[in-house]
Amino acid sequence: MRHLIDFTDLSEREWQHIYRRFEEIYEHPGDYRDALRGQTLASLFYEPSTRTRLSFEAAMLKLGGGVFGFSDPAASSVSKGETLKDTVIMTSGYANVLTLRHPREGAAMAASLYSSVPVINAGDGGHCHPTQTLTDLVTLRRLRGSVEGLRVCVCGDLKYGRTAHSLLRALARFEGIRAVLVSAPELSLPEYVKRTCGAIKLDEQPDLRTAIGDVDVLYMTRLQRERFRDPAEYERLKGRYTLTPEILSGAPSDLLVMHPLPRAGEISEAVDGDPRAVYFQQARYGMFARMALLLELCSLPPFAVKEAEPQGVHRCDNGSCITKTEPYLPVFEGSACRYCEQQNN
Amino acid sequence: MRHLIDFTDLSEREWQHIYRRFEEIYEHPGDYRDALRGQTLASLFYEPSTRTRLSFEAAMLKLGGGVFGFSDPAASSVSKGETLKDTVIMTSGYANVLTLRHPREGAAMAASLYSSVPVINAGDGGHCHPTQTLTDLVTLRRLRGSVEGLRVCVCGDLKYGRTAHSLLRALARFEGIRAVLVSAPELSLPEYVKRTCGAIKLDEQPDLRTAIGDVDVLYMTRLQRERFRDPAEYERLKGRYTLTPEILSGAPSDLLVMHPLPRAGEISEAVDGDPRAVYFQQARYGMFARMALLLELCSLPPFAVKEAEPQGVHRCDNGSCITKTEPYLPVFEGSACRYCEQQNN
Amino acid sequence: MRHLIDFTDLSEREWQHIYRRFEEIYEHPGDYRDALRGQTLASLFYEPSTRTRLSFEAAMLKLGGGVFGFSDPAASSVSKGETLKDTVIMTSGYANVLTLRHPREGAAMAASLYSSVPVINAGDGGHCHPTQTLTDLVTLRRLRGSVEGLRVCVCGDLKYGRTAHSLLRALARFEGIRAVLVSAPELSLPEYVKRTCGAIKLDEQPDLRTAIGDVDVLYMTRLQRERFRDPAEYERLKGRYTLTPEILSGAPSDLLVMHPLPRAGEISEAVDGDPRAVYFQQARYGMFARMALLLELCSLPPFAVKEAEPQGVHRCDNGSCITKTEPYLPVFEGSACRYCEQQNN
Repeated sequence: MRHLIDFTDLSEREWQHIYRRFEEIYEHPGDYRDALRGQTLASLFYEPSTRTRLSFEAAMLKLGGGVFGFSDPAASSVSKGETLKDTVIMTSGYANVLTLRHPREGAAMAASLYSSVPVINAGDGGHCHPTQTLTDLVTLRRLRGSVEGLRVCVCGDLKYGRTAHSLLRALARFEGIRAVLVSAPELSLPEYVKRTCGAIKLDEQPDLRTAIGDVDVLYMTRLQRERFRDPAEYERLKGRYTLTPEILSGAPSDLLVMHPLPRAGEISEAVDGDPRAVYFQQARYGMFARMALLLELCSLPPFAVKEAEPQGVHRCDNGSCITKTEPYLPVFEGSACRYCEQQNN
Repeated sequence: MRHLIDFTDLSEREWQHIYRRFEEIYEHPGDYRDALRGQTLASLFYEPSTRTRLSFEAAMLKLGGGVFGFSDPAASSVSKGETLKDTVIMTSGYANVLTLRHPREGAAMAASLYSSVPVINAGDGGHCHPTQTLTDLVTLRRLRGSVEGLRVCVCGDLKYGRTAHSLLRALARFEGIRAVLVSAPELSLPEYVKRTCGAIKLDEQPDLRTAIGDVDVLYMTRLQRERFRDPAEYERLKGRYTLTPEILSGAPSDLLVMHPLPRAGEISEAVDGDPRAVYFQQARYGMFARMALLLELCSLPPFAVKEAEPQGVHRCDNGSCITKTEPYLPVFEGSACRYCEQQNN
Repeated sequence: MRHLIDFTDLSEREWQHIYRRFEEIYEHPGDYRDALRGQTLASLFYEPSTRTRLSFEAAMLKLGGGVFGFSDPAASSVSKGETLKDTVIMTSGYANVLTLRHPREGAAMAASLYSSVPVINAGDGGHCHPTQTLTDLVTLRRLRGSVEGLRVCVCGDLKYGRTAHSLLRALARFEGIRAVLVSAPELSLPEYVKRTCGAIKLDEQPDLRTAIGDVDVLYMTRLQRERFRDPAEYERLKGRYTLTPEILSGAPSDLLVMHPLPRAGEISEAVDGDPRAVYFQQARYGMFARMALLLELCSLPPFAVKEAEPQGVHRCDNGSCITKTEPYLPVFEGSACRYCEQQNN
């Protein structure tokens, strides 16, 4: 791994290594407080975030490193029209590692073409959010001992929800996973994602109470207003599934209730006191997982940036792909866009 | 003390301890530059600030700690509608101490219900600003040797001014204090605040020059546009009292002129060169006082969050109370709101 | 040097010293990672920036120091109308060094009257940007071994471009410099700047390809929309000069192509792969140069602020001078404004 654009950029061996490092840091954080002294993280957030941005900042600070960057592009040269390429080249010249959140799919892949240091995708539009998946897997393994054989219910926005897609794709690498999918019909898991789920046994169940009667994990997701083209559709679908103590009452006593957060009503506050509610602990594990990841990436030897040679032409159909706003990006022949991975129609 | 919501959360012993620590740090700052290495402050500012926010940031950095957070809620998940509760639980999972500034009264109390680390109120609406009071008392003691027996003139907005209220309430714990109150009649010190002033001998004097003829301290306050419901009233009252060299000419040569800052015309720039003007030194002491406070709070043993059980119903009359925007907060029986402390009519 | 307002505040000896320190830090950055431990930089950015602000932040962090400040004045007490003077006095009480970027000319000089720590001008309107010049000279010396005798082509906005003016003024201190000026007639180098160019042999050449046929350095500059009073004039002139591989093809093989960045079309992305394109390396050197500068300024002994006595009256004709918005600033007799240095008509 040189850059972390998609969770699958981590090999099996790297996942094992990062997990073990996570455990060491979680149990002995004081031992790591100077680990990245003198090193810096460039935090480039082109759209709002609390959790991911602050999680990375806290992680780097607790390793003794420093953080600089922007979280409001209006207050930076970006408002003077600077390209993503130039911003990435410049900041990677100042830092040891870069995190990038961007509203357009493919932005992290684009950044990785120009950065002289490792790039971590902190979320690129509706495409990937690999450190959320890392957080999720670390939580599952920490609280269950192992990810193998888990029965996972995923509920909410399975159509646009990048965290749901990424989690399922990552779980596909483990043995014996069963997934129960709960969503409105309009928001069901798309075929192209099902194809990436490998050997996972997928079932669909419209009723949440029934679905969680016999699973190990309930993973709730938020409908993200910002991903819906049609606001009326968002309004119509958003309240469909809400987890309440009543619905939870029929679930196994050792169920893990997870949520990437922020939540917007799909888990009632009344659930927070239930010992099965682990979403806040999940966020905390995420900070330690990011510490392990930063330690790993900051210890890679330096590498030379090799500018990609364009090979043919690919006209991406995705209106929110990074190639629409950064026209200098080299494009490549193929049925799928190299950046946002969307298949052409 | 576990959280610092109101200055009175500090016991007499804690005040003495923090003052001594302030002195040590002020005199030997180099000795403390690694004191909080590996620790972090979560700085959650839901409304603009320079002084308080930067004072805390500088304080934590000079102790070798790190700072993360937000100062523009529009650039965070808050703009996705995340509750104060969720933001506090999440950030307290990443940090060792939390500072919170919020436009609504009671926000810091609300945060303390959910935070797993100490919460410092950096200002909650018109309610409290305990570290400003800490700054003020430290300044008085440092420059006068002792707070006992001081004669203090407080001038400006005594009706809405939280720093004036908090200062008087804190001074009430010392012996022999005399206070001279100078304000427009519409902005006089409310009865409910007078009742908290204990043994302080209170006088009212409409003329500023007369009032400062025989006092040790003049504490000027700004009329805060953002606390006035009626902008026309603000405009009418704001210029009533301005400290000029001319007015100062009749005051004792050892008078201390203080102001919480920022100022907006109530102290003329021409006063700045007068040796009695100590408001900038006051701000500087405030940073060292915050260092002492952070050191104290970051050395407390960890504690478990116990979610408060609601007891009855209290319908708060304060339209800007935190309970209006965070409806999940448990409420309690009583004539005063548990959060903003406002008495019902 | 106590403050760095203009590059010429650096004596010849200080320039030599800072350059040597730059080299040491560039070659052994690990040796400096604790150099400024316990010290802080107050970063006061009143207008957007990426490069300069992040360059300073990264520089301070890599020296083991801390950074606090604001980059969006709307989120600070400035929005409560706080004067520049009060903000500077307050933040200089918290920090060891201050960087200031401000849209009005003369702001950095104004700040230096009140700051109790060294002030670094990070750009004051159209006036000066001394650390850009420091970056440029460090780059020239590092890549050419010496600044003496260089033949430099400067292209773009020579009328409003502060980086071009400052570079030429700084080059005037070296022996044997020749400058070829390339611009639209409307944007030619003003007479008052030519007068500050000392012994530099100046030529004007409207054709870029011809101009770079026989020079050592091509320094491209951006037309800055924000400096033009007339937007139509900006639109008309902005595309006049664009560096392409075609134009570059006739230039010497050891030409250095430099640009202060951000760029907005005046250097085609197709040039980036050319070994002569050094603008990104230039930005990286700039961070190390800022490290050397910070180290230098943070080791100065403390000094007392002496408030300037106004001497007479000077009515500045520059509508964007800092004196227009900070009316308390002392003014001085003379034909040029003490702050923005503009000559009266």
